[in-house]
Amino acid sequence: MSVQPSASYAITMRVEHHREPGTVAKILTKIGEMGGSLGAVDLVKTMKDVSWRDFTVECTSSEHAHGVVAAVRAMEGIKVRTWSDRTFLIHLGGKIEIKNRVPVKTRDDLSMAYTPGVGRVCMAIHEDREKAWKLTIKQNMIAVVSDGTAVLGLGDIGPEAAMPVMEGKAMLFKEFGGVDAFPICVDTKDPDEIVEICKVISPTFGGINLEDISAPRCFYIEDRLKKETDIPIFHDDQHGTAVVVSAAMINATRLTGRKMEDLSIVVCGIGAAGVACTKFLMSMGVKNFIGCDRKGIIYEGREGIEGNLAKKWYAENTNKDKRKGTVHDAMAGADLFLGVSGPGIITIDDVKQMNPDPIIFAMSNPVPEIMPEECWGHVAVMATGRSDYPNQINNVLCFPGLFRGALDAQASCINEEMKHAAAHAIADCISDEELGPDYIIPSVFNKNVSRSVSKAVHEVAIETGVARRKHRHAHDHQR
Amino acid sequence: MSVQPSASYAITMRVEHHREPGTVAKILTKIGEMGGSLGAVDLVKTMKDVSWRDFTVECTSSEHAHGVVAAVRAMEGIKVRTWSDRTFLIHLGGKIEIKNRVPVKTRDDLSMAYTPGVGRVCMAIHEDREKAWKLTIKQNMIAVVSDGTAVLGLGDIGPEAAMPVMEGKAMLFKEFGGVDAFPICVDTKDPDEIVEICKVISPTFGGINLEDISAPRCFYIEDRLKKETDIPIFHDDQHGTAVVVSAAMINATRLTGRKMEDLSIVVCGIGAAGVACTKFLMSMGVKNFIGCDRKGIIYEGREGIEGNLAKKWYAENTNKDKRKGTVHDAMAGADLFLGVSGPGIITIDDVKQMNPDPIIFAMSNPVPEIMPEECWGHVAVMATGRSDYPNQINNVLCFPGLFRGALDAQASCINEEMKHAAAHAIADCISDEELGPDYIIPSVFNKNVSRSVSKAVHEVAIETGVARRKHRHAHDHQR
Repeated sequence: MSVQPSASYAITMRVEHHREPGTVAKILTKIGEMGGSLGAVDLVKTMKDVSWRDFTVECTSSEHAHGVVAAVRAMEGIKVRTWSDRTFLIHLGGKIEIKNRVPVKTRDDLSMAYTPGVGRVCMAIHEDREKAWKLTIKQNMIAVVSDGTAVLGLGDIGPEAAMPVMEGKAMLFKEFGGVDAFPICVDTKDPDEIVEICKVISPTFGGINLEDISAPRCFYIEDRLKKETDIPIFHDDQHGTAVVVSAAMINATRLTGRKMEDLSIVVCGIGAAGVACTKFLMSMGVKNFIGCDRKGIIYEGREGIEGNLAKKWYAENTNKDKRKGTVHDAMAGADLFLGVSGPGIITIDDVKQMNPDPIIFAMSNPVPEIMPEECWGHVAVMATGRSDYPNQINNVLCFPGLFRGALDAQASCINEEMKHAAAHAIADCISDEELGPDYIIPSVFNKNVSRSVSKAVHEVAIETGVARRKHRHAHDHQR
Repeated sequence: MSVQPSASYAITMRVEHHREPGTVAKILTKIGEMGGSLGAVDLVKTMKDVSWRDFTVECTSSEHAHGVVAAVRAMEGIKVRTWSDRTFLIHLGGKIEIKNRVPVKTRDDLSMAYTPGVGRVCMAIHEDREKAWKLTIKQNMIAVVSDGTAVLGLGDIGPEAAMPVMEGKAMLFKEFGGVDAFPICVDTKDPDEIVEICKVISPTFGGINLEDISAPRCFYIEDRLKKETDIPIFHDDQHGTAVVVSAAMINATRLTGRKMEDLSIVVCGIGAAGVACTKFLMSMGVKNFIGCDRKGIIYEGREGIEGNLAKKWYAENTNKDKRKGTVHDAMAGADLFLGVSGPGIITIDDVKQMNPDPIIFAMSNPVPEIMPEECWGHVAVMATGRSDYPNQINNVLCFPGLFRGALDAQASCINEEMKHAAAHAIADCISDEELGPDYIIPSVFNKNVSRSVSKAVHEVAIETGVARRKHRHAHDHQR
């Protein structure tokens, strides 16, 4: 378990202290003793005898933050006047807003952007519905839709509580793909109603990103929407994960000289992400999978499996040798472990039973199925979902560029070919010279990724006949 | 009918012409002969023999614009290389976008705005749902919802074609009230489904502005949503119009020394706006109304009225003397004509039959029930919905400030008292010294209006017990 202080637990304390030499040093010493990691120290104001300073400190948890404040507060001659949790601070009032793209400062502006001029634009769309792609926000606007039933690792926390995640997702779409995304959290868990809402609001949007909807409802909702709408529908928890995992796998096999068709993979966690990764990897040529859930290896005929369509599919399409047992039993002879389950599921003894040069993708977040420190020296490649270790497998490598490409093409869907193009584009961002055990997947801040993905996706959308807009333009991706 | 060139029909022509003295003058002369009103002339580039210039010209209609281009194109030695309709130009790609309010440029940013930090914010809202008002966009975000069935004067043009109007509305919310508004056009005309969608998406929003939904469906949808949600629901076509008309009426009576309770009003057009204005004016003390529709005066027992609940209500609650006849018959003895119907419905002879010092609010747009020119000299006050005559009665005077105040109060609804406060706040923006026949209603660009309205609405929300947030803050209205 990590006990590194992190920005996600940063606080800012406003401290009043006497203007005596050494006072600030004493405060810093106390913060250090308490295990806080010091960031900025800003002088707020100085009076005759006292000064006010803001100390920003990264902590390891909320309790730790409270402890740091209490310890400073207990120091003689020191007052903590206020303190704030920086993560909560940046959430005040929400993280996104609406911005006007053209001015409405004068009567002439108003007469073009609103009445009476707007009427002609409306009638042009009324006469040709496809013009909505040109003359409205549809061109660059997607909906991020969630019912709040499977938010991060937090479970079913409801639509209001899911909003900060969806707002964050919208921010990433904008920052990394130039895609305008609007978060909509719906107060219903009825799959048919969620389908109906998405269909009915679809005139406004050029695509819908489904997010944090629990399985198996997410499968049903996505399937129906793909059939019943003419815009891209994409459940990121499934397919975004599958694309980025595949990109990492392309480079891991490239590095270790393996072929996809020879790989033997253990998938731990047979939920939305696990099933989607398996299916997508199958389409890339991988043949041998063993799936594990809380009860161990999934095999045809295992008791209680019939009621769960996803696991039933898994039993029927993987594990041809009908192996049985625990996840530990599954590890023997595997080339790659793909964890989309929970913290600390496997041990280093399990890893040692794998084939030579094993590959570990331990993506449970924030605590992986096995910590990288334990694996070092025993594996060829180690990847996680975390930003503080090498090889972070993060969906943000996929979804902004993927939707950017789909919107640039005004695509009617996101098909398998487009996802394949995205996976290869991500993998190809790392050259042969750069490729190494600690660098199989590009950084989320690598600006080439989104550009490469969008270009590849747009081209494949045209090739596969799902693009309304056939040519790439110089201004694409420049909004 | 107006034939003034206007910005809403402006074009920009890129013209190539020989570099001979007098050539530009010839082009300008031609544009003038054609009735085009010249705006900017920008030099694009100059080559050896020829120059390229952009001429911006206001026209009176699309046909007129085509005529101007054709006339310039026909000139000897002149080429029109391209030309564009400025109104369409500003609509390309839509009029609004999403903007991030906090940065996501570094790993630390990401860890606070997104995972893992965001999880704590989610859990805080999960534990106390009301915190969504503080920690999500709900605080400042409303939905502008339309089904596209009654868009401007264009009728039922569908959800895609309605989008430019809803985007324009969102722009006005932002520009004039600092309110983030997101347009959602729904692909259904079923009132129950529209209600259900609004309810289900309401966790995301701090209010819902219903727009351009045809009567009588708009009444039913609004009534149900007001009962079944805990956020402000406001059908602007009804209540926004009623508030601004009432503000104008407060000042018109103030100017002409009348009392509300003595006024005799003819309302022409008994749709959503006409009924809402009548009800709202009743609540301000007006007692005498005669309503007219296409078939003439509405009275109890008129054939065919039973099937229309709005007209039935109108017949039962107005026209106590049971007058009958045409709209022209209704005008005799009226103090005020309120037109929310169609172009050219009444004549100057009708106006002459009204009581002394009559007041005309001819709000049909773009062509009023009677043109101001016809009335000048015969009326005490003349107001329209147009920006090119004095006394423009425009909903933008109300809705941005009204929602600003409701959101600042985190109000659970917009009640009658809040609407009254808004009407008086708008009227009070004109001092006794300023008040005059050509100035009974402030300009839409008067920045005091939104501020005054929001302050009054917020205060009344607190007084009437519908505010979640009890105190006004220094930063209110400053987003």
